[in-house]
Amino acid sequence: MKPVIQAPATAMLELLQELAAFSAPGPGVTRLLYTPEWSGAQHFLQETMAGLGLGVHTDSVGNVFGRLNGSQPSGSVILTGSHIDTVVNGGKYDGAYGVAAAVTALHYLSQTFGPPLRTLEVAAFCEEEGSRFPLAFWGSGNVTGLYDGKAADSIADPEGVTLMEAMKACGLSTGGSRIDSEESSGRVANSARREDIGMYVELHIEQGILLEQSAEQIGVVQAIAGQRRFTVKVEGTANHAGTTPMRLRRDALAGTAEMLCALERSAAEAGAPLVATAGRLEVIPGTPNVIPGEVQFTLDIRHSEAARLESFCAALAAAFGEIASRRGLALELLPTLATSPAPMNQALCGALEQICLEQGRSFRRMVSGAGHDAQLFAPKCPAAMIFVPSRAGISHSPEEYSSPEELAAGLNVLTALLYKLAYEAS
Amino acid sequence: MKPVIQAPATAMLELLQELAAFSAPGPGVTRLLYTPEWSGAQHFLQETMAGLGLGVHTDSVGNVFGRLNGSQPSGSVILTGSHIDTVVNGGKYDGAYGVAAAVTALHYLSQTFGPPLRTLEVAAFCEEEGSRFPLAFWGSGNVTGLYDGKAADSIADPEGVTLMEAMKACGLSTGGSRIDSEESSGRVANSARREDIGMYVELHIEQGILLEQSAEQIGVVQAIAGQRRFTVKVEGTANHAGTTPMRLRRDALAGTAEMLCALERSAAEAGAPLVATAGRLEVIPGTPNVIPGEVQFTLDIRHSEAARLESFCAALAAAFGEIASRRGLALELLPTLATSPAPMNQALCGALEQICLEQGRSFRRMVSGAGHDAQLFAPKCPAAMIFVPSRAGISHSPEEYSSPEELAAGLNVLTALLYKLAYEAS
Repeated sequence: MKPVIQAPATAMLELLQELAAFSAPGPGVTRLLYTPEWSGAQHFLQETMAGLGLGVHTDSVGNVFGRLNGSQPSGSVILTGSHIDTVVNGGKYDGAYGVAAAVTALHYLSQTFGPPLRTLEVAAFCEEEGSRFPLAFWGSGNVTGLYDGKAADSIADPEGVTLMEAMKACGLSTGGSRIDSEESSGRVANSARREDIGMYVELHIEQGILLEQSAEQIGVVQAIAGQRRFTVKVEGTANHAGTTPMRLRRDALAGTAEMLCALERSAAEAGAPLVATAGRLEVIPGTPNVIPGEVQFTLDIRHSEAARLESFCAALAAAFGEIASRRGLALELLPTLATSPAPMNQALCGALEQICLEQGRSFRRMVSGAGHDAQLFAPKCPAAMIFVPSRAGISHSPEEYSSPEELAAGLNVLTALLYKLAYEAS
Repeated sequence: MKPVIQAPATAMLELLQELAAFSAPGPGVTRLLYTPEWSGAQHFLQETMAGLGLGVHTDSVGNVFGRLNGSQPSGSVILTGSHIDTVVNGGKYDGAYGVAAAVTALHYLSQTFGPPLRTLEVAAFCEEEGSRFPLAFWGSGNVTGLYDGKAADSIADPEGVTLMEAMKACGLSTGGSRIDSEESSGRVANSARREDIGMYVELHIEQGILLEQSAEQIGVVQAIAGQRRFTVKVEGTANHAGTTPMRLRRDALAGTAEMLCALERSAAEAGAPLVATAGRLEVIPGTPNVIPGEVQFTLDIRHSEAARLESFCAALAAAFGEIASRRGLALELLPTLATSPAPMNQALCGALEQICLEQGRSFRRMVSGAGHDAQLFAPKCPAAMIFVPSRAGISHSPEEYSSPEELAAGLNVLTALLYKLAYEAS
């Protein structure tokens, strides 16, 4: 007979509220990596988890963990959590929700059911957004081995402070960090790297509008989309807008417009979950009475299946090439980002659906178009993600909102999964 | 029996070269209104024309005239010339060529044929480009009555210097200027205003590629195109590029791309001499992973026939409206400039063609897509324009170039027309 899971949502909401107070001035929440606000939140979390009886430890890059030891002597850790950094003027749910829910779940489980069979850990990753330094997933990336600390000296924030300098200012490169000595010895392993993670489960707001539109409570994430980003440069000839007949023009913007129409048409034909966006576009010289001589724009293309993502990008490049060559324009596609799709574990997805059915919650299978820490774990161990609705699909904004009921639903699905994984004999 | 016209091209080329020396530092020629460079050129021209026996006078805004009095006591003035200001980093031919040729022609005519029957005058307009202050045709506009001096106090350059302050710094608002007193007395007439101009003839580089492509020597301008300019604002919804499915987007840039394709297609269908250009375009927020929430772009549309210009703009606005409404985008078209097409005088065009035939020069009838001082005179008196080829159609650039032979051909056509108008009994 399954126990009824009723994790205390009010405790989680209070924790979320307390975390939101650690913010730089301005609208919403601004908690950038290795800033005083971030340090404050990180220390607050350590104290909170310790107070709740979790075994707190940190690592060399500032990730915080809260451990609930399992009674089985061996076996890998079931990790659950998210990140505590935010974008500039972000909301209080993105990342923090997954951390607050994980803390609440572990405390509830230990209080209600005693120690688990398998060890459970909360992870509060130091950084996911890449909002201060031009790299993302610094926290989970150091845990999973994507990073080995080498970036710390070469990457700087807009003020020119390197990642290493920012870490030192937080007391992170001393007292336990082995990054310096590892680098000088030529080893690539980092003290944050862990090989004992057996599963990863992340609860997060959807940041999209699908759950709200379909009035469903829970999103069972099937995969996190892979991304390809490009900077596209289209070169024509700048010329006088009054004296150059239409038939003699090599208008870089007119060519770009045709490419963007082709982009939208191809994306519609490819169908969901493919999304394709040109988000930034610059016209040179950008003068009302001069025919554009050059246009640069960005492409952001995402799909949950690697092969389809690749074939879409290849077909698009061919279509752009045809348009450019027919118009006598020069074309350059510079790849700027490539991440692989990260499929979530199907057994965990099945368990989540079963839990939703048992709890009487509506759910949908969906692809995450946004990136998450879970994509770093998916190639290493079974990983799962649970989404709850975002009002109007808004995130990365002070307007970000999910109702207490929606947040509570996600908490209880997460808690039930952790119970199943850590308490039921496999 | 017609006299052979052989105006001295070398004198004109020397004068062009001397004028080009009055430039701010940097590539090409930079001679902005009321700057020391401009003042230098203006005084140099006065001395040069006086030295050539022309009666020099100036007006309150800094236009310079060189007069060759006719022997017929009455009758209006035949004015010929162009402007002496340039764009930033412009060439040495745009404007200056028409002035240097006019000075050379009048000197040659007086030396060769004595005083004319009708009075001839060179005009070196103080400004046509609008490169320092955000208004164009300040020189010819004050002569023809488009401006009455009122703009002088309200218009400022990028450094915040008003047109009036810049004029005072050149000594122009004292010693002859009546702008201040006129403004205070509420009169709209300006001391630069002239009612004695009977004809206006302007020689200019084409600034386009048609003459070069057709290997013709002379362009006989039939009309100066009218212009409509708009700022177009397209509003959609900014959203996450990863989590927003294609079918739920209101992408302002995708909508704009469809509009720009429609613009190009409509312009091709309308045919020459219609030209339509989107020269400036801005995307907001302009972030690679955010769907564009807003786009602003400029439209520059030109045609030599007012009715066709109007109907094209009206059809375009309707097409844009259909695209916006189908996509759920908000659309605003803000008119920012409207000038009427200026037809050149057909009798003068005929005379120019006759002269080309007599001189054995190839020519074509053409529309000027660029604006010129002549368009200010066309509604007031018979006006004509003569074009010579621009290499590769380039102007407003240090690369601007027309060969000595091409410049000499234009000079001789201008001189022959002035001879016919001022020396032959009508």
